[in-house]
Amino acid sequence: MYNLLKGKKGIIFGALDDKSIAWKTAERAHEEGAKFVLTNAPVALRLGTINELAEKTGSQVIPADATSIMDLEHLVDESMKILGGKIDFVLHSIGMSINVRRGNHYTHQDYNFTKKGWDVSALSFHRLMSVLYQRDAMNEWGSIVALTYMAAQRVFPDYNDMADNKAYLESVARSFGYFFGRDKKVRVNTISQSPTPTTAGSGVKGFDGFMNYAEKMSPLGNATALECADYTISMFSDLTKKVTLQNLFHDGGFSNMGISTEVMDMFMNQSQDKTEEGLPKEKSKKKK
Amino acid sequence: MYNLLKGKKGIIFGALDDKSIAWKTAERAHEEGAKFVLTNAPVALRLGTINELAEKTGSQVIPADATSIMDLEHLVDESMKILGGKIDFVLHSIGMSINVRRGNHYTHQDYNFTKKGWDVSALSFHRLMSVLYQRDAMNEWGSIVALTYMAAQRVFPDYNDMADNKAYLESVARSFGYFFGRDKKVRVNTISQSPTPTTAGSGVKGFDGFMNYAEKMSPLGNATALECADYTISMFSDLTKKVTLQNLFHDGGFSNMGISTEVMDMFMNQSQDKTEEGLPKEKSKKKK
Amino acid sequence: MYNLLKGKKGIIFGALDDKSIAWKTAERAHEEGAKFVLTNAPVALRLGTINELAEKTGSQVIPADATSIMDLEHLVDESMKILGGKIDFVLHSIGMSINVRRGNHYTHQDYNFTKKGWDVSALSFHRLMSVLYQRDAMNEWGSIVALTYMAAQRVFPDYNDMADNKAYLESVARSFGYFFGRDKKVRVNTISQSPTPTTAGSGVKGFDGFMNYAEKMSPLGNATALECADYTISMFSDLTKKVTLQNLFHDGGFSNMGISTEVMDMFMNQSQDKTEEGLPKEKSKKKK
Amino acid sequence: MYNLLKGKKGIIFGALDDKSIAWKTAERAHEEGAKFVLTNAPVALRLGTINELAEKTGSQVIPADATSIMDLEHLVDESMKILGGKIDFVLHSIGMSINVRRGNHYTHQDYNFTKKGWDVSALSFHRLMSVLYQRDAMNEWGSIVALTYMAAQRVFPDYNDMADNKAYLESVARSFGYFFGRDKKVRVNTISQSPTPTTAGSGVKGFDGFMNYAEKMSPLGNATALECADYTISMFSDLTKKVTLQNLFHDGGFSNMGISTEVMDMFMNQSQDKTEEGLPKEKSKKKK
Repeated sequence: MYNLLKGKKGIIFGALDDKSIAWKTAERAHEEGAKFVLTNAPVALRLGTINELAEKTGSQVIPADATSIMDLEHLVDESMKILGGKIDFVLHSIGMSINVRRGNHYTHQDYNFTKKGWDVSALSFHRLMSVLYQRDAMNEWGSIVALTYMAAQRVFPDYNDMADNKAYLESVARSFGYFFGRDKKVRVNTISQSPTPTTAGSGVKGFDGFMNYAEKMSPLGNATALECADYTISMFSDLTKKVTLQNLFHDGGFSNMGISTEVMDMFMNQSQDKTEEGLPKEKSKKKK
Repeated sequence: MYNLLKGKKGIIFGALDDKSIAWKTAERAHEEGAKFVLTNAPVALRLGTINELAEKTGSQVIPADATSIMDLEHLVDESMKILGGKIDFVLHSIGMSINVRRGNHYTHQDYNFTKKGWDVSALSFHRLMSVLYQRDAMNEWGSIVALTYMAAQRVFPDYNDMADNKAYLESVARSFGYFFGRDKKVRVNTISQSPTPTTAGSGVKGFDGFMNYAEKMSPLGNATALECADYTISMFSDLTKKVTLQNLFHDGGFSNMGISTEVMDMFMNQSQDKTEEGLPKEKSKKKK
Repeated sequence: MYNLLKGKKGIIFGALDDKSIAWKTAERAHEEGAKFVLTNAPVALRLGTINELAEKTGSQVIPADATSIMDLEHLVDESMKILGGKIDFVLHSIGMSINVRRGNHYTHQDYNFTKKGWDVSALSFHRLMSVLYQRDAMNEWGSIVALTYMAAQRVFPDYNDMADNKAYLESVARSFGYFFGRDKKVRVNTISQSPTPTTAGSGVKGFDGFMNYAEKMSPLGNATALECADYTISMFSDLTKKVTLQNLFHDGGFSNMGISTEVMDMFMNQSQDKTEEGLPKEKSKKKK
Repeated sequence: MYNLLKGKKGIIFGALDDKSIAWKTAERAHEEGAKFVLTNAPVALRLGTINELAEKTGSQVIPADATSIMDLEHLVDESMKILGGKIDFVLHSIGMSINVRRGNHYTHQDYNFTKKGWDVSALSFHRLMSVLYQRDAMNEWGSIVALTYMAAQRVFPDYNDMADNKAYLESVARSFGYFFGRDKKVRVNTISQSPTPTTAGSGVKGFDGFMNYAEKMSPLGNATALECADYTISMFSDLTKKVTLQNLFHDGGFSNMGISTEVMDMFMNQSQDKTEEGLPKEKSKKKK
C-alpha cells in the first residue's frame, strides 16, 4: 500500500495458517514490496497451510527446526541465495509449551518439557541471531523482531512456563541487540501483542475469558493479528531505524491500565450486592 | 518491639486520625524507640484527632502548611530543637485533589484546583526536602519516605489528577534523592501502597469496588495501613541503608499481576454465558 | 515518500527553527501527504523562523499560548476550518524551564519558576487534549504524540525541574489517553528521544558532555531530529492504530543499556591506572 | 541485634566463603535469632569454607545439587527434621555460567554450557520452590528471596548469558510467587544487588572497571555484601509481609540513574578536549 518495504529482503518464521500473526505479516510485507523466505518447523509445515501463503506471496518455504544450528545455517544461506543478497528483516514468531499442552500445572512441571519449551521458544532466538551475526547476513539498518507476551512482566496464571520463556526471549533481544547494534547497525526489538485468537493461542486454558477481560480493560480494545502485522511492518521500515532493545506493547493500551471503568463496574456491583444484599442494579444494564 | 529505631529522630506528616497510615507509622515508630514530631496542615489538625496520637506517643504537634516554605522552615528548626539534634527519618503522607472532591471529571478539570492539588500533593515534597537540605537538617544515612499510589504508573480512572500528582512526586523523589544521596548520604524512596480505607482514601468514587477488585487480584490480598507502617519502619531502619531512588510496591503483589484466577473466573463465566446463552454455571457457585 | 499521511490533517506545536524536531516532523508530514497547521507561543514565533517552514509546507501559522485555554480553543477551531474537518494527528513539542535558564540548582528552585515551567511544559498537554476532547475535534483512530525525555524515569542532574515536568506529562498521556481511547478511539503516546542538539536542548548545562556519553552508550548512537520525525510519522500513520498509553524510547538503545564496552573501557583504564600507579595502557589507544 | 528473626527457621543456599552475600546473610540471620540449614552444591562445599560458617552459627550443612529434585527433596525434608518444623525463610543465591568461565563471547555460545548455566542458575529456583510447595514445607507468611542482578533489565555486555538467566529467574519469582502467595501466604521476591566483589563476581571480565563505574554512578555508592545481608533480613522479617512478586533494587540508587555529575565530568572534559584540541582542564583536577 505504501511501498514501505520496497527492495527489502526478509525471513519470516511461524506462519502456520491464516490466523497466524506471521501469516498476516507476510501478506502485509508482500503488499509493501518486500521479498522474503517463509520458514517453520517441519511438523508445523505439515500441520498448517503455509504453501498457500507461499504461492500468494511468491515466496519459497525452507523448513527449519529452530533448535538446530545446522538448520538455521542452511536457512540463512539459502535465503541469501534465493533473495539475492543480505537480509533486511526477520520475524521470530515461535513458541510452544508442552507443559501447557499436557495441562501440567505451573507449580508441578515436567522439567524435560520445560527445557524443550525454553529451547524452542526462547533459546531459538539466540540461535537465530547467532547464525545471522556469524554469517554477517544482515544489511546495515536491518530489523529483527520477535513476538512476545506481557506474561513476561506480569502474572497470567494459565500462561504457565511460556511466561518465563518470554522473559528469557526479551532478555536475549536486549543482550544480543546490543552487539548486533554496535557491530552491524541492526536493531532488535520484541512486540508484546494482545491475546490473539491464533490456532496456537486459542489452545491456552481460559483463553476466551482472558480475551474478554483484556477487551474490557483496553481503551482501544484488543489488537488483532492484522493490526500486529501493520505494526511489525512499521518496525521493519526505515521509519524506525533508531528504535532498538525495546519491548513494544501493541495491545490497545492494556499494559498501562490499572482498571477500566467497565471492569470497575462489575466489581462495584458485586461489592454493592454484598453490602445491599444482592438487589439487582439498574446500572449494570447501562453497560455497553 | 525490636528497637529498630532506638535513638532515631523523625518528622511525620499526615496523621489525620487512627485510620491514617501516618498514624499507624507514628505508633509503630514509637514502639520501635523513635522520638518524633507530628505535623499536618492547620485545617487537618482541626478536623482530625492528632492530639490523641501526640499524647499516646509523647510527641509534640507543629502545624505546617506544606505549601509554605516558611512553615516548613519553622517546622524543621523547631523539630531539631525539640528532638535535640538532626533528623533521621521523615514521612511525607500528604495528598488532596479538589477536582476529586468536587467530582470534576479528569477530562474537564478546573485548572486552579489542579494547580492547588499539585502544589499540596507533589511540589510539597520538593519544598520539604529543599528545606531539610538547605538547613543540613538530616543525619547521614537518614531516610525520607513519601507515600504514593500506582496510578502514577497505570490508569485508575477515578484517581483523577492525583495520578499525575503522584507521578510528579515520584519523580521528585528520584531527582532530589540523587542530590540528597550524593551530598548528605540520605536515602529517598516512595512506597506505593494498596488502596487503603483511610478517611481520605474512602472518599474516592468507586473506592469499594476498587478495594474489592484489588483484593481479588492480589495473591496476598490488599496491604493494610498497619502493614504499611511496618514496611515504612523497615525503610527507616538501618537495614535498608543502600536502598534509594526506588518506588517500592507494598500491595500484596497487585502491581505485577496481569490477571488472577479469581478475576479470570468472573470473565470466563461471563464469556461462557455469552456463548452458551446465559445458562447458569455450576462453577460460579464454587467461588469463595 | 510513502504517502503514509495522505489525506490526514494535523496540528504541530513547537517548530522554532530548522533544528527543531517539530520542524523536521512538519517537513516529513508534508512529504507524506498531510495538511497541517503550525503553532507556537507568540514569543517563540518572533524568535524563530517558522514562517519559512509554513511557506515550504503550504501551512498556516496560528499563534497559541499553551497555558491559555482560550488560545487553544481558537487554535483548534481555526485549524478545523482551515483544514476542512477534524484532526488526525497532533504533535506536542513544548517545554521550558526558567530554573534551567537562570541556572538555579535543582535543590534550590524559585517555585514561581517551577510552577510556570510545569504549567507550560506539562499541564499544557492536559489543556490541549481537554480542548480537543471537549470540542470532539479528533477523528477516530487519530494519534496524539508528545515529546519527552528519559529524565522522567532516571536521574540526569542537569535536566533540573524538566525531569519532573516530563514525568507529569507522561502521566497525563496515560490518564487522558485512557479516556481519549475509550470515548473517541484516539491514541495518545509519548516519544522519549535521545538528547538532540536543538536550539532549546543545547542550552542545557553540560549538554555536549551528555551527548558524548549517550553516543558512546547507545549501540546505534544517538537518534537525530530527522530520525525522530520519521518515527513520529510512523506513530501518526495507520500502521500503529492499537499502540496507546505508551512511552516509546527512540534513542538508539540508550534506555536499556547498563554499560557499553566503550564506556567500560574508560573505567577499566582508570581503575587499572589507580591499581598500577598510572602507567599508560596500550589498550586505551585501541579505542575507536 | 534486633531479634527480628527470633524463632524463625530457614534454608540458606550459596555461602561459599566469607565474601559471599549468603555467608553474610547467614551471620546476620544468626545474630537476629534464626535457626537455619546451610546448603550448597557438593563441589562448592569442597572449594569453599562453609564448615567454618556452620560452626560459627550452630548450623548443619546439607549438600544439594540444585538441579536435582531428589537432592532438593532430601534437603527440605532433612531441614524440617533438623529445625523442628516448617520453614520461614529461604535464600537462593546460586548462579554460574560456563560460557563466562570459558571466555565464550555472548554472540557465540556453546549451547550445552548455556543450558547448564540456565538449569543451575534459573530453573533451580523453580525446582526449589516446587519442592517447597509440593511438600507444603513453608509456614504462612514465610519469605523466599533470590539474589539477582540488573543485567536482567539492562545490557551489561560482560555479564553474558547470566543476564538472560537472571531474567528467567525473576520471571519465575513472579510466576511461582503468585501461586505461593495465593495458596500458602508465602511471599517471593528477588533482590537486585550492586556489583559485589565476591569470589564468584570478581571472576567476571572487567569486574573492577564496572565496580568503579557503578560506584561513581550511584549516589550512595555500591552496596556491600553485608548491607545486602541486612536488607535480606528485612525481607525475611515480619515487617515486609505484603511485599511480593517484586524485584527490589539494592544498589545505592544505581538503577534509577541516567548519569551522575562525576561521570558527566569525565565526558565533558573529553568533549571539551576534542573541541579545544586537548588542552588540559583545571576542572579535572577538582574531581575527588
